[in-house]
This record gives sequence, C-alpha cells and structure tokens, in this order.
Amino acid sequence: MEGRSVYRRGRMAGCRLRRLSLGMRFGDAERLPETRTLALAVRRNRLIPICLPPPVGPRPEKLPAKLPAVEEQPVTTPWYAIENAAEVPSPALLIYPERVEENLRRMIAMSGGVAGLRPHVKTHKLPQIVAMKLGAGIEKFKASTIAEAEMTAAAGGRDILIAYQCVGPGAHRLARLIQTFPKTHFSALVDNGGTLAELSAAAVAAGVEMTLYLDLNVGMNRTGIEPGDEAVELYRELTRTGGIRVGGLHAYDGHLHNPDSAQLAADAAEVRDRVSEFIGRLRDEGLEIPRLIAGGTPTSPLWAAHGKQELRDRYGIELDVEVGAGTTTLWDFGQAAESTDQDYLNAAVLMARVISRPTRDRICLDLGHKAVAPEMPQPRVRWFTLEDAEALLQNEEHLVLRTERADEYPVGTVVYGIPRHICPTVALQSEVVCVRDARAVENWPVVARARRITI
Amino acid sequence: MEGRSVYRRGRMAGCRLRRLSLGMRFGDAERLPETRTLALAVRRNRLIPICLPPPVGPRPEKLPAKLPAVEEQPVTTPWYAIENAAEVPSPALLIYPERVEENLRRMIAMSGGVAGLRPHVKTHKLPQIVAMKLGAGIEKFKASTIAEAEMTAAAGGRDILIAYQCVGPGAHRLARLIQTFPKTHFSALVDNGGTLAELSAAAVAAGVEMTLYLDLNVGMNRTGIEPGDEAVELYRELTRTGGIRVGGLHAYDGHLHNPDSAQLAADAAEVRDRVSEFIGRLRDEGLEIPRLIAGGTPTSPLWAAHGKQELRDRYGIELDVEVGAGTTTLWDFGQAAESTDQDYLNAAVLMARVISRPTRDRICLDLGHKAVAPEMPQPRVRWFTLEDAEALLQNEEHLVLRTERADEYPVGTVVYGIPRHICPTVALQSEVVCVRDARAVENWPVVARARRITI
Repeated sequence: MEGRSVYRRGRMAGCRLRRLSLGMRFGDAERLPETRTLALAVRRNRLIPICLPPPVGPRPEKLPAKLPAVEEQPVTTPWYAIENAAEVPSPALLIYPERVEENLRRMIAMSGGVAGLRPHVKTHKLPQIVAMKLGAGIEKFKASTIAEAEMTAAAGGRDILIAYQCVGPGAHRLARLIQTFPKTHFSALVDNGGTLAELSAAAVAAGVEMTLYLDLNVGMNRTGIEPGDEAVELYRELTRTGGIRVGGLHAYDGHLHNPDSAQLAADAAEVRDRVSEFIGRLRDEGLEIPRLIAGGTPTSPLWAAHGKQELRDRYGIELDVEVGAGTTTLWDFGQAAESTDQDYLNAAVLMARVISRPTRDRICLDLGHKAVAPEMPQPRVRWFTLEDAEALLQNEEHLVLRTERADEYPVGTVVYGIPRHICPTVALQSEVVCVRDARAVENWPVVARARRITI
Repeated sequence: MEGRSVYRRGRMAGCRLRRLSLGMRFGDAERLPETRTLALAVRRNRLIPICLPPPVGPRPEKLPAKLPAVEEQPVTTPWYAIENAAEVPSPALLIYPERVEENLRRMIAMSGGVAGLRPHVKTHKLPQIVAMKLGAGIEKFKASTIAEAEMTAAAGGRDILIAYQCVGPGAHRLARLIQTFPKTHFSALVDNGGTLAELSAAAVAAGVEMTLYLDLNVGMNRTGIEPGDEAVELYRELTRTGGIRVGGLHAYDGHLHNPDSAQLAADAAEVRDRVSEFIGRLRDEGLEIPRLIAGGTPTSPLWAAHGKQELRDRYGIELDVEVGAGTTTLWDFGQAAESTDQDYLNAAVLMARVISRPTRDRICLDLGHKAVAPEMPQPRVRWFTLEDAEALLQNEEHLVLRTERADEYPVGTVVYGIPRHICPTVALQSEVVCVRDARAVENWPVVARARRITI
C-alpha cells in the first residue's frame, strides 16, 4: 500500500508518511522515533509499513477540498496495532484494558453512579474484567449461565444475578453455587409456578435461601410473565414460598433497539409506563418490591435517567432501579449502529492474517466463523484499511474478501477489525490477548465460555 | 401431549401408546417393561410420557388412509432419548458412539478401504473419536488448525495433514509439532512462494523436514493456486527447497455441493479433469507426485469411485488418491439436504429444555446461538416432535419457537434436535455428552476447540 493509494482514498488527514526503507523487519519499527507503525504488510517476505486511518470517528463522506500533501502528514500508530504481532498466532481477539476501564467510567456516569449499575458479564466472560469492574467500584453483576456466575464469584463478585430461568438441573446447580460461595449473594429469575416450586424444593433440600426476581415479559415475548393478574399472584406466591426470598422485578426490553433515538425513547417510555403501573399495583396489594432491574444496552441510559424518577413522581414509590448494560464494556460496531446516542470505545479487536490470494482480486483471511460471531449477516467484521472489501465467503477457518487492492495485502499481512457482535465473538475464543502499550503482553483464558466450571 | 393430538398429526404409525399413569417421576419409565419412554414432559410438576415419532424417514406428506388405533401402537424409545435426562444440564450436545462407529464403517466402504480415506477431525475435535477411527483401521487424518493436529497426534494419530496454510507464527508452530511428536508424520499446504520460503526457514531452523502439499484452486477461489504454469513452477520449487519434502497435491472442491446428484457428478468430473490434466503435465515435466488428497464431503464418493481409475485410464498414472470427508462422522441435516445420495446416521443430537412460555403460542428453549452454529439461516435445529414450530428469535442463550402446540411443551420439557451444521456446533461446546444404551454416561471435553493446546 503506497501513500498515494491511501491518499486517494481520503484517509490520510493528520498523517505524515515518513520514508521508511523497505526491507525492515519486525522490531525495526519500534526503533524508529515518532514513527511507530501500524499494520505491517509483508511484501516479498519483507515488511513494509502501512499508514492506517485515525482510530475514531466516521469516515468522511467526501474528501476535504484541500488535504495537506502526504509528505507533511505525521505517521501515527493506530491505537489497535501491536508491535509484536509477529509473535501472536491468528486469529486472535485483542483486549485493551485501558479502553475497558474508560468504558466502565462511562457506564458508571451513564447510570448515575455504581448503585444503579449491574453490567452483564456474558459480554466478556473474563475474571480479569470482573476485577476491573470491582476496581472501578462496580459491585453488582449480571450473568446468564451458572458458569458465568461461578467465574464472577470466584473473581470476587459478591452480588450476582443470574438473569435466567434455572430450570431442570439448573435449580440444584444454583443451590450449589449458593453453598459454594457463601460470601456471594446470588439471585435468579422466575416466571411460572412450576419453576418456582422446583427452585423452592432445591433451596429447601440444600438448606439455602434463593433470591428470585419475577421476570416480566414487557414486549420482547422471549421469557417472562405479562404484567397482569397472574403476575401479581405469582409475585405474591414468591413472598410465601419456602426457601425463597423476593428480589423484586426484572424487566428486560431487548426488543427495543431502534437506531432512531426519538422512537427508541418513545417505545422505552411506554415499557416504563407498564412496569411502573405494575409496581404501583403490587404496592397497592401491600406487596414489597425491593428492587427493579431493567433494560438492555440500548435502553439502559433511558431507564437510568427516568426509571427511578418516574416511580417517585407518579406513584410516590422509592425504589432502587438498576440497569444491565453489557456490550458497553467492550463495544462493537453492531451496537454502535443501533445505539447511536451512546459513546463507548472499541476495546476488543480481531486480528487476522492474509493466508492466501487465490485470485487477482481476492484475499483469504484466517478468520472463519469459528472465530467471529456469525449469527449476523456479513459484514461480520469491519476491517481497518479494508473498508472497501466485500466478504464473499466465510467458512469455519476462512474468510474470503474481494477488493481491487488485493495486491496491497500479500500473504502474511496482519489486519485488524471490529466485530459486529462482540459477546458471542468472545465466547469463540479459548483465550484473548491482553494489549498494553501497543504490545500483546499476556493471554487470558476465557474462563466462562465453558458451560460448566466446577458446578 | 396426548395420543390424540399426535395421532391427528399422522406421526403415530408403528407406535402403541400404553396407558401410563400420570404422575410418574423420572426413573419410573425405566421400570416399565417394553415401555421405555422418551421425551418426558413435565406438566404441573409431574412427568408424562410423550410418544415420539419414529427416528428415521421423512414425515409422510399425507396421513395414510387408515391408521391403526392409537391403543394398538407400541411405544418405542426413540434412539436419541436418554433415560437420565434429568441429570444432564442443558443445552447439551449428545454423541452416540455406536452411530459414529457405523458412520466410520460406511465411510471406509465409500472410499473403498482405509487407504483412500483421510477424514477431517474439525467436525468433532475429540480424542475419543480419533481413537474410534484408529480402532476402525483409519490411519490418516485431516485437520485445519495446529490445535486439532496436536489433539490428533496426542490421541495416537500418526499421519496428519493440516489442510491449511501455516502463515506467520504458524510456520514455527508446525515445526514444533513435528519436534514434539516424532512418531507422527505431519504435513501442510502451500500455495505461494513467500509462504514456502517461510516454512522452509522454519523447518531448517528447527532441524526438521516438513511435508507440503501444493494447494490447488480448483474453482472454490478460497485458497490455492490455479493449476497452470505458475503452479508447475511452484511445485518444482517445492522439490528443491531446503527442509521441505513434497507430499503431492491437495484439491479441495468445497464449492461443489449441488443437491442434484447428476449436476454434482458433472461438476465434479470437470474438476477431476482439470486436476488429472495438471497431474499429467507434472508427470511430463518429470516431477514426482506421491499423492492426491481431494474432495469434501459431497464429492468424496465421486473422487473415491473415479479419481484413481481415471488417472490410470487416461494418463497411465498410478497415484494414491485420498478423500477427506468429515461431516460424515457425525452427520447433520444441512449435509443430508445437500448430499442426498449419501446415507449416514445422525450421531450428534442437541438436547434443550423449555425454560419459559412467554405467550400462548410460544416456547422458549435454552438453546441460544452460543450453543448451536448460527452461520446458517433458521431453522438451525430440527427439533424432533416440533417439526411444525417456527424459530422466531434466537439470542445468545434463548431460542423462541412459535407453535400452536405450545401447551404440550410446559416449562421443563426436554427436547432433542439435529443441528443444521454439526462442525461449528461441536466447537461451541466445552464438553459433549457420551450416550450409551440410552443413558448419558460421561462428558468428553472438546479438547481441540481451543486454538492452542500446548503448542
């Protein structure tokens, strides 16, 4: 990739391309002051530096009228590039702890403090990020599997909601979690009498107390009971079932993800109205509601901003409201496209290599759908510097891209990209690569991608 | 689910529904002679037996004119149901070793003996199945990652082709595999001079010899070099590069999967012609071709039937031809739909539970796309007894189905299904459940789903 071609594509603003001698090898780049490279391209077995676009901000729609000459633009290392890429087998998922920490700060600010925040661990499944959350003052955790809950407890989490229905053997596994980690408070969801009876039996048999939240179906029609008469009765049942303590209500509105923020706000307000009304009704029945846990990533800011206040204003009810954003920890381009009002940093980047160039205009990367979440349509990854490339074919260990610039990506070239959906992408990795100061420094096993750790 | 409703749907032929008292619990079913049940449904916390359809054969288009009365039909346990389901957390992937062994026998028959067979381990990633293959006399293995190759070698495999381009750190990892398992013969693919030079350097540095196959692009346009002048030159280069031994040719025709078997046969013949012609040309240039490894699951039978013979008839060349079928080991419904002429047993079954019934006509299963391969469109699973259900929504840990018979599937009901694509489905499991004599007997860790074991 020559400066010319980059320049032509209008992405060199703010960069100066220094003349680096071709033929440099890995390590050389580090020794060049102020000239830390980039993605390095291998051409004829030699490494050449590629000037990559600035890390943030959308690609400009049009070329500015006048760009500085290429020669005047400083070379900057893009934030995601690592200097020791040659040592890192691909495909790999790189995690940038400083960016995670910044996202945690923004999440805390969004929810108005740690008291209102219960972020989901399913996104990362990593004890190291649980530790970062604890370090940031976050004390409440949401999990979707017994294994995620166990990982979180082992990493020091003391308040963990399994936002899931523990059915079948799940009831006994939940009881064993409670027995195994006596310092941690576990809770789970329930939306029907049968499951409640099984959980109660498991709790009583194990001599433990289970905290359960009534799971409300607020329009997603995935799980939960509709906020109505039956739900009032089931909630009342919770209060008098042996071995069970009432946690409160869980209202997940995952069906709300309209990128039009005005429409999203209107839809979310409607859901809040239904939930508030139901809470008012429970209160009128003399039932106590310790807490409301609500919202997914798109609606969390709205719940945080209005949930508690509306309950106070309309019903005079003081209630703890917690939001459960998750993807915000690592962020991805699918969530960014849906939640246009939210501002988080990409803290997880896929790294791949060109392994073949089967035709003039095709490159094949070693990034198959066993390494990136494939439940979404293509593109499943947005590759930096390859924004023009079209994904033609993805198999288990291969991704074929078509680009007229294939000759700029010889076999061996390292490329970086943002996945569309980070949560299941993490679950496809046996370990992720922790990056500090532009270097891969250690591997972190993705502990909770297992469905069973010890329990 | 009552006999009546099943009867109405025309799926009771060959079954007799015995009167089992409602209220039986797990374990009761085992004690009923000749009446082993099946999927058991939980209704009001009680287990009721469900008579499931016969395991094989398509669903009849129309109801036969006269069916025997329900009372006369014998209850049969479907092959996939396990008696101790209550002990098995879901979601789970069940593996049936006797069915795997039968598939291996059919694969050997298809390829005309073990000499012509090099099945892919990517499908199962399990040392236990490598052991079954060895037990069946299969001595050659195909892998797509260094980890799969390491797992296979550790399980006793002595001849392993990594059907992949070992680029970047892959070159040194391949050298270390060769050093670590001196009794195993490893080989890999190459399709360009740069990679060849890197592999050669890694081999020489490690003091080992690497066997490389020239990877031909025979129309898939994924990896490989077109069989032409450059390919001849690269092959010649292989023969004289230090540290490298020539394995022969690799021709993967994964683009051929037409369910119309006549068209598939014609397309496959065209690919064989190109490959044969290229082999003739190499021979004319005085180059030795030790072996040809060709075909994916759909075309393997055709390569096995014609590949060797055509070379002999047309060019007088005697060459070992090996086929690389993989999915055949476990089978799935996607492959069955594509390869209509092939007859293998489903040897891997997903087990899930109903965890919620959020609306009148919806059930939610605990089978999200973190547990079944989601790169294909819905349906990603064909659920036994739920053939009429429509997949409405799948998230990471949830699958919502719409069925008018939702009331027959109360929360807790265990259901079984065949995945569309088994290979990446296995890779989503931390362990699979081995089933013998209709019981889950042990868990097998999916060793090679890791991208790195020790190397």
